[in-house]
Formats: sequence, C-alpha cells, structure tokens
Amino acid sequence: MADDKKLTTRAEDFSAWYNELILRAELADYSPVKGSMVIRPNGYGVWELMQRALDDMFKETGHRNAYFPLFIPQSFLAKEAQHVEGFAPETAVVTHGGGKELEEPLVVRPTSETIIYHMYAKWVQSYRDLPILINQWANVVRWEMRTRLFLRTLEFLWQEGHTAHATHDDAEAETLKILGIYRTFAEQFMAMPVITGLKTESEKFAGALRTYCIEAMMQDNKALQAGTSHNLGQNFAKAFDLKFQTETGEMAHAWNTSWGVSTRLIGGMVMTHSDDNGLVTPPLLAPIEVVIVPIWKSDDERARMVEAAHKLKAELTGGVVDRGTRRKLSVHVDDRDGMRSGAKYYEWELRGVPLRLELGPKDLEKHSVFSARRDTRAKAAIPMAGIRDAVAALLTTIQADMFAAAKARREANSIRDPNMTYAKFREIMEGAGGFVYAGWNGDPAIEAKVKEETKATIRCIPDPEFRSPEAPAKCLVTGEPAKHEVVWAKAY
Amino acid sequence: MADDKKLTTRAEDFSAWYNELILRAELADYSPVKGSMVIRPNGYGVWELMQRALDDMFKETGHRNAYFPLFIPQSFLAKEAQHVEGFAPETAVVTHGGGKELEEPLVVRPTSETIIYHMYAKWVQSYRDLPILINQWANVVRWEMRTRLFLRTLEFLWQEGHTAHATHDDAEAETLKILGIYRTFAEQFMAMPVITGLKTESEKFAGALRTYCIEAMMQDNKALQAGTSHNLGQNFAKAFDLKFQTETGEMAHAWNTSWGVSTRLIGGMVMTHSDDNGLVTPPLLAPIEVVIVPIWKSDDERARMVEAAHKLKAELTGGVVDRGTRRKLSVHVDDRDGMRSGAKYYEWELRGVPLRLELGPKDLEKHSVFSARRDTRAKAAIPMAGIRDAVAALLTTIQADMFAAAKARREANSIRDPNMTYAKFREIMEGAGGFVYAGWNGDPAIEAKVKEETKATIRCIPDPEFRSPEAPAKCLVTGEPAKHEVVWAKAY
Repeated sequence: MADDKKLTTRAEDFSAWYNELILRAELADYSPVKGSMVIRPNGYGVWELMQRALDDMFKETGHRNAYFPLFIPQSFLAKEAQHVEGFAPETAVVTHGGGKELEEPLVVRPTSETIIYHMYAKWVQSYRDLPILINQWANVVRWEMRTRLFLRTLEFLWQEGHTAHATHDDAEAETLKILGIYRTFAEQFMAMPVITGLKTESEKFAGALRTYCIEAMMQDNKALQAGTSHNLGQNFAKAFDLKFQTETGEMAHAWNTSWGVSTRLIGGMVMTHSDDNGLVTPPLLAPIEVVIVPIWKSDDERARMVEAAHKLKAELTGGVVDRGTRRKLSVHVDDRDGMRSGAKYYEWELRGVPLRLELGPKDLEKHSVFSARRDTRAKAAIPMAGIRDAVAALLTTIQADMFAAAKARREANSIRDPNMTYAKFREIMEGAGGFVYAGWNGDPAIEAKVKEETKATIRCIPDPEFRSPEAPAKCLVTGEPAKHEVVWAKAY
Repeated sequence: MADDKKLTTRAEDFSAWYNELILRAELADYSPVKGSMVIRPNGYGVWELMQRALDDMFKETGHRNAYFPLFIPQSFLAKEAQHVEGFAPETAVVTHGGGKELEEPLVVRPTSETIIYHMYAKWVQSYRDLPILINQWANVVRWEMRTRLFLRTLEFLWQEGHTAHATHDDAEAETLKILGIYRTFAEQFMAMPVITGLKTESEKFAGALRTYCIEAMMQDNKALQAGTSHNLGQNFAKAFDLKFQTETGEMAHAWNTSWGVSTRLIGGMVMTHSDDNGLVTPPLLAPIEVVIVPIWKSDDERARMVEAAHKLKAELTGGVVDRGTRRKLSVHVDDRDGMRSGAKYYEWELRGVPLRLELGPKDLEKHSVFSARRDTRAKAAIPMAGIRDAVAALLTTIQADMFAAAKARREANSIRDPNMTYAKFREIMEGAGGFVYAGWNGDPAIEAKVKEETKATIRCIPDPEFRSPEAPAKCLVTGEPAKHEVVWAKAY
C-alpha cells in the first residue's frame, strides 16, 4: 500500500515525479534484470483495456491474430541491409540451449519482420492469397542502455501488424488506415490528442519506404512518439523472396506494411493526464472507474453503510450502459475497516480512479451520494434516483473534458510563428520547449545540426490537417526556401 | 488454401494424421528455428477463445493479470534445489546483449516461479498484503529435443498463476479451486472429459509440495496431461525470503501455489475430437461456428443467393443468444466465385467449422436452409422462421454431444479389472493402450520399473469421484497390499 509521503511535484522534477508516481500507484516495478520491468496488476489492467480496444478495431478492419516465434536465426536479420544496421546493435543473443552451444546463435526478436516475411513467402503463391492481414500481441527485446519505466525498457509488450499486398497503393492504403486507427484510439480512449504525419528519412523505420506516426505532447512539452505505421515497399519481399503470381500470370514481389504500438502508451497516458496527487486515468482505460467509499462512525453504522455501498454497486453494475463500448461500469467498494476515509481518498487519488462516490448516513437520508471527480477534483451530490445513467454520463463528460484539456495544453505550447528565427528557436528549446512548426529545406544535414545543437528533432512532416494556415516560406535554419513545414520538439 | 489430397487416416498412422491435419487446416506451421512453431490465425483464434474463457474464470475468482520479465538471472534458478535440477538442463541462455558479453548470463524463462517470488518478497510485509492472486499470459521456452506441433515445442504460450497465502490450508484451497476451473474449462468449453488427481512424487513439478492435474484420453488411447496446479508449500518462500508479519506479530514464510495450461490444449482438442476428414471443433472454441455456402448455377442466381446468404448471416448475428456465454454467433459467408460447392464443403470440413448451412434457390423457395453438422455429419433442413434460436440450440447440442461421445470413448478404453495381472497389463500397453486403473504399493522403484518396461506412467492418483467402486487390494506388479489406486497410461 502507498505510504503517505507527498509525491515530488511536476514543477520540481518532472522525471522524478513520473518515476515515483509509477511506483507508488503500483503500475510497475523495477526487476532484478537491469532495464527490465514488472508490470503490476494496476498497470496491466490498463494494458488489457488498451488491447481490447485496439484488437476490436483491428478485427473490424479484417485483421486476424497469429503468433510467430520469439527466436530468429541471426542470419535472417542480415537479409535486409537497413534493417540489420538499425537493429543488430540492440539485440539479445541466445548462444546456448539445452546445455549446448548452438551452431547458429538466435536473436531474441527486436521486431518480427524477418521471420514473418519468411513465413509469408511460404504461404503466398498467387494474388488470390493476398492480402494477408495479420497482427500479433507479443514481447520484444531491444538492448537499451538508458531505460525508463514504460517509455524505454529492455523488454516491452506490443502489437505488431504485418501485411502483404499485391500493389503499392494497397499497402499505402493499409498503412494510412492503421494510422487512422491509432489516432482514433489515442483520442477516444486515451483522451490524448496526437498529430499525424510522415517521418523524415533519418527518423523512419530501418527498412521502410515511409514511416507515418502519431505524436503526442507530454506535460513537460516533450514529444512522445506513440505509434508508427510503415509502408515497407518491396524491401522485405525482395529480401525474403515473397513473390506471387499476378492475375495476368507474371511473378511479382508483394508489398508489405508493418505497424505497432506498445506498453509505452501507458507512460504516455501518465504524462498526459496525471497531476501532483498521482495518476489520472481516462475512464475508458480505468480498470476501476468508480470507487465507493462508505463512511461510518460506529460499528452499527458500519454494517448499514457497507450494505448500502454494495447495494449502490449492484445498482451501478446492473446493466450495460451505452457509452460506445459494451463494457459495464467497473465499480469497487472500499469497505476496509480500521482505515480513515481520508487515507482511502488519498490512495484512490494516487491510483487514478476517475470517480469517487462517498456514502455516509446523511447522504443516505437525502437519497443521494457525494461525488468527487479525479480530473478536476470537482465535488457534487448526485441523487440516487437514476444514478446509473448519471454516473455513466459523468464518466463520459470526464473522458471528453480530459481530451479537451490535453488538447488545449498542447495548443498553448505549439508555436507557429512566421518570424521564428533559429536563435529564438534555440531559446525555446533551452527553456519551456513545445512543438515548433517551422520551415525546413529538406536537408538531412540541417536536421542533424539542429539535433546536435538543441536536442530537438523533427517529429514529423504533419498531415495537411495539422499544418499552419500559412505554410512557412523559409527554412528555419538556413533561410532557404522551405521544402516542408515540419514539427520540431525534444522527444522521449 | 488446402489441396484436395486425403489426409492419412488415424488408423493408418495417428501421428502422421495429427501433423498433416494441423498443417492442412492451417492451425500452425513449422518455423525456421527447429522445434519452434508458428501459430497461424486458424489456430490462434482457438487460443483466443480459450484465453477469454479461462481469463473470465480467473477474474471471477479474484485473480488479476500482471507481466513479469522474460529474462531471469541464471543464479535465481539455483536458489530452489529441486527446481534447478528440473529446469536447468532445458534452458535457453542469453550470453550477449547490445553487442557485449553479459557479466551474468540470463535464462529465458522456462517458468517464472523464481522471478515472481523474488518480487513478491519485495511487495509483502504483513498478513494484510496476503493473499496475492496473480496470473500472467506469456511465452516460455524449454529446450526440447523431440518436439511435436502444439504438444511439445521449444517455445509455447501459456498462462501461469502465482499466488501467496498466509497458511498451508489457504494455499491448498487455492490449488484445488484452480484444478476445478481447469476441469470446468476442459469439460464445458473443450468438450474434453478429464480425470483429476494427484501426481506421484516422481511426476510432480520440480519444487512443489504436491501437484494436481487434469488428464485426458486422446483417440489413440494415450493420456495428455492438460493442466497442472501446484501447492508449492514454503519451498520458494524460503528460497526467496518471502516472509510476512502475522496477525500476532511473528514473522512467517508465505505459502505459494502455481498453476498453468498452455497452447498444448489445442493439440488436446485436435486429438480428442477430430476425424479422418479433418478438424472437429467444439462450437464454444470455434472462431467460425457457422459457415453459410450459397449455391447457384447462373450469374443471375449468384447475385440473388449471395444476397440471401448475407441476409441469413445478419439474421443469425443480429443479437446475443443465451448459451451461457455473452458471445454472438460467429458466422461466415463463403461467397467465393469460381469454386465448386463440393470443394468448399471439403475445405470447411477440414477446418472444423461445427455447422455448415447450404442455401440454394430451392431452399429459399421452401423458406428453409440445409444444415450439415461437422461432428456427426448429420444433415437436416432447418426452417428459416426462428432460425437464430434453432441454430444456437443445435450448436449447444453439438457441444454436448461431442462431450458425451468423448466421454463414452474414454470409458470404453478405461480398464478396471480386479484380476488384472502385470502380464496382461503389458499386453494392453503393447496393444490398444488405454487408462488402466490398478493398485500400487507406493514404491517409486516399481513406478520406474513399469515405465522402463512398458513406457506407461502413473498419470495420477485419481480423486475419489474417479476411483473404482471397489478399491484394488493389491499392487499390480508386486502383489503387495496396494497403497493407492492409480491410473496407468502411456502419455504425450
């Protein structure tokens, strides 16, 4: 159980606040293997709700789940030149099995393109076998030196989709369809606004033709890459001989896409919404949406109030309420004895339960219950009559308000200044940070120079909807004509 | 897509039949890493339904999911003496990470007792922190030399529950509660009868006090250990210093349980129900429960029949039908053009879809549809009026009939003969096999001798419900007084 010490505040030390919150809210813990973590039930419960929502959307769009092996022959990685360059330095390598040294070492998958396209090459003969639309939920390992709970860990959980198509355009449509699913998920479930766009050549996935991404802004104004969707072109199909006979009888290489989001999203949720009192969870991702705290003074009163609290829970969970999901309200009664109500409130606030209902003898008399929102901490009485619909509506409001608040914060820290100079830009990046929309001449050398000098990177070339009303005419750094408007930020 | 060659029959070669069926029904495929497999969407869909059913039961009994790391320091395994003896020879070992040799090699988890009880020792201080009831869904690796698809693979998927309790009796009650869940799942979802019982000392889990199991009989009369539930006593608590302060203020070691079922269950499902035409799936575990095949002769007719088939699908999936699950009927329309209906039937039979509905112009005229059960291959017309309830009822019947048929087969091949001699026993084990209920003097040396001479092992000391009406008086081998009635069988 959480102790009563206050969290470090975000203003004091954002990074310390984040780590303390994760540990104290029991979302995760450090493991004895450096860089690995344990996802505790409070954190895993969030992941399960994320999985369910994403999985439903993948299946609605025709994808099916499968499972490919953890171990990949080391030689597979080398078959796609960019891919091996990107991933080989980060791999964990199994050299011994069953007490013997292996003839060929096995890599613990850092991602599964190589083994999956090897299998697709076995399965695909004709255009009739396409498209293949497969996703897997799996663990992957990347040997990271500087790790941080949820955001960057040696092992993490994710989903990776891998598809094969007959044409470039089919693959591109798939890549963008998934980007849309990621955006919908971020906005509607995580209440986390994102911008969508294209990665530059130097930031794209190792082996991809093009990488699209969703990027979110954390409360310290740094960017979090929250999901990526890659059009892999024919790179892997050529490396793994993934060919098919076309309708007109020729042999052609397939076109592939891959796309993924990971447990990193939990870190993104924390850094988007939480406050100095602890975790704040959007209702649609809260394992417990409502906690009922019965209040009593005497033993006699206790029995009566605990009973009333459980009756209220039964009322709230008695049927499915329509909130765009088929989920019933998830309600917990905290009837622990020998603990002050204040200590209970403190603990449930730390753990981010979206709505607290306090039920004392006087509330019962008045046929109402006292509510406290976690996000705004607003308090109000709610009449018992029709309480299930009222609570469901309030949770829907909380979800919407959290999204609106996060979006307003992002907009307040997005800078679109046609007169931005590089000197001003450096000041911003040394100070409060944020998303700076600016022109770029398209030169990777300029991108590298800015990264070197300011630690800011191009998060993406934003999709039209996110571009400035007036496109910046000049490159922020060189003053040359801008090739693209890009979004600069420091990032996790 | 499946080719039209007939499967090897069960009578010809049960093992070849099994492998061909798995590959041709596209449940799984071999991977380039020897001993590993790819679980294809048809197989993974079954696993997802298994997961959902089990996970619901675990949660209803107060368990929560979490995730512990894949890598375990090699030294952890050595902390429990029996455990390391059992598992060390089977481990895959990571010796290099991020391009460097590791100071301490990491073992890829073969099971997670060691790392989990290490963490619990951090989390538990007082009796108030108990019980801990955690489950995880994960992949594990055991370096097997002789592998077989689903039944024994280098890597497999499973759930492993790990709990900590204040007393021996609490741990024992948990162990038995989970055994009950496994039995319910096997019977109600897999339509696979099992016997429950206790493993002998030589067959128990490495590090356990007692291992309970569910054992099923396959169509070749061999046993399949389908799930195990271990009372670990205080063995791991002592090895990992998992202690708590009791209500009376002393320090005591916790009592642990662990329990698991794996993707091996898919192999068990195949070998329990399938036939020479391919897979037979119990409806509750079928990703597609009903396939509708529209039948036409002309293009004109085609449009009309395909539309009628989709209308029928909409009717069938229009609402939840009450079958003890919240699942809607899962229905697929096979409207592929340029393929004979017979070829479609053949393919869906191979893939094990429980019910096929054929819809031709004449059926439409008669306001009915023609049905073919996969299990019995019985055919009958079903009136369109009230078809959703009729189909749901038929699927429920199929589920029940499959269980009854499997149970009758098991009983027909269970031998309870008070006059059984060891010579007769050896004949049986060299011949048709089966479950032989017999007396045992309790001596591990006798157990080892029988295994050596016949390959049969003691599957379990059966729970009272499964024992013979009259307990065998003498040991099958020595003629000494029997200490237990046990079940002998060859096993996977």
